[in-house]
Amino acid sequence: MELTKVHVPAREGRAVRVAAGQLVRVSTPEGAQVSDFFAFCAADTTEHLSAAHTRGHTSRLFPRLGEAFVTDRRRPILTLVDDTSPGRHDMLIAACDPARYELLGYEGWHASCAENLRSVMRELGVGVTTVPQPVNFFMDIPVTLQDVIEWRSSPAAPDAAVTLQAEMDCLVAVSACPQDLVDINGMRPGPLEIEILDK
Amino acid sequence: MELTKVHVPAREGRAVRVAAGQLVRVSTPEGAQVSDFFAFCAADTTEHLSAAHTRGHTSRLFPRLGEAFVTDRRRPILTLVDDTSPGRHDMLIAACDPARYELLGYEGWHASCAENLRSVMRELGVGVTTVPQPVNFFMDIPVTLQDVIEWRSSPAAPDAAVTLQAEMDCLVAVSACPQDLVDINGMRPGPLEIEILDK
Repeated sequence: MELTKVHVPAREGRAVRVAAGQLVRVSTPEGAQVSDFFAFCAADTTEHLSAAHTRGHTSRLFPRLGEAFVTDRRRPILTLVDDTSPGRHDMLIAACDPARYELLGYEGWHASCAENLRSVMRELGVGVTTVPQPVNFFMDIPVTLQDVIEWRSSPAAPDAAVTLQAEMDCLVAVSACPQDLVDINGMRPGPLEIEILDK
Repeated sequence: MELTKVHVPAREGRAVRVAAGQLVRVSTPEGAQVSDFFAFCAADTTEHLSAAHTRGHTSRLFPRLGEAFVTDRRRPILTLVDDTSPGRHDMLIAACDPARYELLGYEGWHASCAENLRSVMRELGVGVTTVPQPVNFFMDIPVTLQDVIEWRSSPAAPDAAVTLQAEMDCLVAVSACPQDLVDINGMRPGPLEIEILDK
């Protein structure tokens, strides 16, 4: 049963509240759109999903189906329960931010996942100072045996989706990555959809 | 010319101030000792060395000689200028903390790199809430082509050292990792040495 559906316009962010046991589904309607994904504990938003702790917890660069993302206090916050994409997701790269676009040579203001996060969390009454490392769904960043990180265009087909089950009450923020100077979104940032469902 | 030498006893941490242009050298006198390494901008300690931004900056899992670690504002903070170890260092794994030892089944208090960091930064008047992901010198965590993270014992020989040049005034914290339940330190945590030198 679908409870909430939130459209995330291209280059923007949205945040939702998810209760323990509910499912949160993130999809790319047009395909090939990277979703920067953040999660904070509702009871204490200083505790948040941590990429570094999750890598240690799973001994993998990215959780497999059935495995959990954990917080910086090593508590499971969301479990990956379904994935209709090719399964290429990233947990190595920081959210894009104004400094990233400046270093890429862009002049003037450019939307960014870091600013999107701060903006949507502020609407929920949460001030974000240090931006946690995001989970980047649909972002294809393979690592070679020489430890080189490659940047590839997302292989996610239209309507590809990941589904996570909340292990605790949490606040989830999703940013439709506005990166259009490095080809991770097919150079054409698109929208995302968030759905909250009961199990 | 050596200016300062600081001994880091086994299982403990120490913090030092490093001025722009100075070199900081971290060595493992007995070999095979992991050094959790953190750096904060002296002018504003909310800005710190960021593993996620450094991976994006270098397009590698770990900088090569001559490459810089950058902050969460994408500014170079320290450049890796020398390495007499086999070059196996980690930038994937979070600092050990009380939750890590509890999950490993340890009963009672166990020293941890997260508590060491908080303690030594407090001595410098800096409160650390969220522990940044450390740079783990001498820690051998290879990644397979299947994205599996392997935990190996450090291959660093006695007196192996890394040397970094400060790109800005910074506070550097070093923790001699007390991990003795997972074999990353040869199951025998040892001391480290920090030296601050003029170039």
